[in-house]
Amino acid sequence: MYENNGVVLVLSGPSGAGKSSLLNKIINDIGECYFSISTTTRAPRDGEEDGVHYYFVSEEEFKKDIEEELFLEHAVVHGNYYGTSIKPVKEALSEGKLVIFDIDVQGNTAVNNRLGDITTSVFITPPTLSELKRRLESRATDSQDIIDKRINMAKREIQRMSEYDYLIVNDDLDIAADVLRQIAKTARIKIPTDRVNEFVQNWEDI
Amino acid sequence: MYENNGVVLVLSGPSGAGKSSLLNKIINDIGECYFSISTTTRAPRDGEEDGVHYYFVSEEEFKKDIEEELFLEHAVVHGNYYGTSIKPVKEALSEGKLVIFDIDVQGNTAVNNRLGDITTSVFITPPTLSELKRRLESRATDSQDIIDKRINMAKREIQRMSEYDYLIVNDDLDIAADVLRQIAKTARIKIPTDRVNEFVQNWEDI
Repeated sequence: MYENNGVVLVLSGPSGAGKSSLLNKIINDIGECYFSISTTTRAPRDGEEDGVHYYFVSEEEFKKDIEEELFLEHAVVHGNYYGTSIKPVKEALSEGKLVIFDIDVQGNTAVNNRLGDITTSVFITPPTLSELKRRLESRATDSQDIIDKRINMAKREIQRMSEYDYLIVNDDLDIAADVLRQIAKTARIKIPTDRVNEFVQNWEDI
Repeated sequence: MYENNGVVLVLSGPSGAGKSSLLNKIINDIGECYFSISTTTRAPRDGEEDGVHYYFVSEEEFKKDIEEELFLEHAVVHGNYYGTSIKPVKEALSEGKLVIFDIDVQGNTAVNNRLGDITTSVFITPPTLSELKRRLESRATDSQDIIDKRINMAKREIQRMSEYDYLIVNDDLDIAADVLRQIAKTARIKIPTDRVNEFVQNWEDI
């Protein structure tokens, strides 16, 4: 009953919250996963590969996919389009995988509207705004303009933390990873509504 | 952040689902708990003690407490009153305990209305109706009349399974206990909305 159910884990939180570091620490402990790869119109950063970090497409291609309703969710952030294609998500769910989304607050709302019964959502945040600034500046991959945009977005997103099932304050990486591991394992136990209904129908066996 | 939060675990499911056996198997693994003791007007069964299994009160006393709004929830089942007093629950939450409720579907709705942000709800069921009948009859503590009432109530409650966060089919006790342990540990990570709001207010520290 608890196996072979595809389920969803949504991770949101500011760039600089440490989502990737946390995932790296737990990835071997949480069973077979599929990382949803977003499609975007923004330019690749140094080291980013098409089909690994993002699917990089033109704005024209992106708009065509919107028209054909091929996105589970999509949004415009800092002037660039970001979206999640439905097809690979459905395939991964049918294979019983834990589908992990790294998406923003709007994306979480969209995923919950479509897949709420099997979705567990987690907001990951640095302990303070000044710590977030410190992390973004020490990373030195982004221009000051981008850092300012990220900080403004973080301030807005933080306000919607309570829309999530769980909050992780990433102060100590090991503690935060333990909490995320715990949440991810429990996410596996969610049973889709259609399977619950099927169970109920078969329950009265006499 | 994850400690010293009082949180709630609701367990529902037919009498005969094995809730007590499951709790006994996990109770030493899930931290400090407070088992909410219901107040009832029904007569004690053999071996049931006042203040341990239930608070046994008269219908007159029960109705007085309803008027004074001293119940978190209350309901009439099989002609008897059952309710949960607010005071010990609030105390246990303020001490950071995991408050465990063994209540019916109506009770779950009531608890979620009041404490939804810190509540994790689990519906525990035997694999089939015939298995439930077998368990109730082999227990031999109840009259056939009571067994019939329990079975009718189970048929109604099963229909509302999808209102719960998690479903446990108690077929194999060890597997079911592993699942419940996992859920109970994760229940601990829920953070009350007022503490999330406090965190958000203090987050912009500069």
